[in-house]
Amino acid sequence: PFCPGNEAATPPEISTIRRDNSAPNAPGWTLRVIPNKFPALRIEGEIDRRGEGIYDRMNGIGAHEVIIETPEHAQDLADMDPGAFEDVIGAYQSRLLDLKKDERLRYVMIFKNFGAAAGASLEHSHSQLIATPVVPKRVMEEMDGAKRYFEYRERCIFCDIVVQETKNRKRLICENNSFILVCPFAPRFPFECWIVPRNHLSNFEDATAEQLKDLAAILKDCLMRLKKALNTPPYNYVIHTAPITVRGIDFYHYHLEIIPVLTHIAGFEWGTGFYINPTGPEDSAAYLKNII
Amino acid sequence: PFCPGNEAATPPEISTIRRDNSAPNAPGWTLRVIPNKFPALRIEGEIDRRGEGIYDRMNGIGAHEVIIETPEHAQDLADMDPGAFEDVIGAYQSRLLDLKKDERLRYVMIFKNFGAAAGASLEHSHSQLIATPVVPKRVMEEMDGAKRYFEYRERCIFCDIVVQETKNRKRLICENNSFILVCPFAPRFPFECWIVPRNHLSNFEDATAEQLKDLAAILKDCLMRLKKALNTPPYNYVIHTAPITVRGIDFYHYHLEIIPVLTHIAGFEWGTGFYINPTGPEDSAAYLKNII
Repeated sequence: PFCPGNEAATPPEISTIRRDNSAPNAPGWTLRVIPNKFPALRIEGEIDRRGEGIYDRMNGIGAHEVIIETPEHAQDLADMDPGAFEDVIGAYQSRLLDLKKDERLRYVMIFKNFGAAAGASLEHSHSQLIATPVVPKRVMEEMDGAKRYFEYRERCIFCDIVVQETKNRKRLICENNSFILVCPFAPRFPFECWIVPRNHLSNFEDATAEQLKDLAAILKDCLMRLKKALNTPPYNYVIHTAPITVRGIDFYHYHLEIIPVLTHIAGFEWGTGFYINPTGPEDSAAYLKNII
Repeated sequence: PFCPGNEAATPPEISTIRRDNSAPNAPGWTLRVIPNKFPALRIEGEIDRRGEGIYDRMNGIGAHEVIIETPEHAQDLADMDPGAFEDVIGAYQSRLLDLKKDERLRYVMIFKNFGAAAGASLEHSHSQLIATPVVPKRVMEEMDGAKRYFEYRERCIFCDIVVQETKNRKRLICENNSFILVCPFAPRFPFECWIVPRNHLSNFEDATAEQLKDLAAILKDCLMRLKKALNTPPYNYVIHTAPITVRGIDFYHYHLEIIPVLTHIAGFEWGTGFYINPTGPEDSAAYLKNII
């Protein structure tokens, strides 16, 4: 349903990039943003918090959008033209800036699921965005952890990661002017990768045009390395950024986490929140560094 | 390697149940507990906490055991003889009581992975136990949440769940003298089930012989319902109990969570810690209640 000519099979588009003067909801686009046809959350209505005995309920207010990254059905993001890849990253930022205007929303989660084992239900390359009226649990945890670190050391933990990883280089895969690509010190999964900005910035929506260009370059590089190293693995990536209601904080630093899906989550991980990873980050990084 | 006659292929047994006078590490057992041949954590050594720049390391001290539930290779736990099933639950408790004596340990996580998609690497029916020198993250979160509830209401949240679910019965699947089986109010997954003791008890290792018998009966009932309803789905179950260093607390209540593996975790779940579940607990419970 995401191929050109099938525009009527999806909800009307929210925004598009068109190289010609073609009409909305018609072929001619190179990137297209649409509401999800089967949304997890809906933009209409009131939040309406209420009790049910000891439990709490609220309505599913929010937004669920799909970013169709390319008109070509079989295009793999890793092989995409660099300019087109920059458009994808640009679309993430512009949707975030637009949704930020809705005062009911607190967070915009931008992510991509590639491959059925990573939760992708359609093959045509796309990313998703879910805007929520609450700050998600994992985001709160990461922010709280970073805040505690800052309170003790008066330094941002992500800035410290950049310093340590660029100095010892054991877990560094590659770098450019704005970002480093590393296997994190305590990865949950083999070949887990993080893209971290060199300079402190808490919110992805405040990244400059030059940063976005560099992010597109290093993310494409990362996906190409994983594709070659692991034979086109399923993967998830998620943009970790501060809540849209928060700006310019000194203890948190936006970044992107990429998880190849090579194993299954099992009882131990469900019960503990800990992950057993047989492949050390130094080994994963050395392998990915030598690809290409 | 778990079938009778292959005892030499596994590490020497920690404990067994034998119906005859057969020798250790030889056939004749009906249940066998062994160390995991490829352990996530090892019992030998010192914890040895140390820094590496901004990061922290410690050695992987702990225990990783396998409970081989039956000598029959193709036996499914759901179809097991009730007495043999009671032996499995009894083995969980006796291993917990034994590991509790090791003062380096803080938690014993008991779980079962059934089916490859649920993380089982061997087909022969088995459960696992991992004892850790720290209280796991998810356990801390659940304890903290329960404690905050208790501080506000001076009631255990699990006791409140038992009262509300047995009263309105919308999410109740079945019950016996000691336990209820429910689909929880906010399930992460379709057909997620919880077994909750009727009476307040924080630690699984303090359950009476009568409770263990009732737990075996209701867990077997749950597994049979899931098997019939979902055509032998992969699943995980985990015993949620208070840390072994804690006893008789009033705000936490041991229970068992069963998760059929029907879907994949994707970027949204990784990023948020929230779960999108298309099947409401009232629907799952109604369906499971009418099975059999």
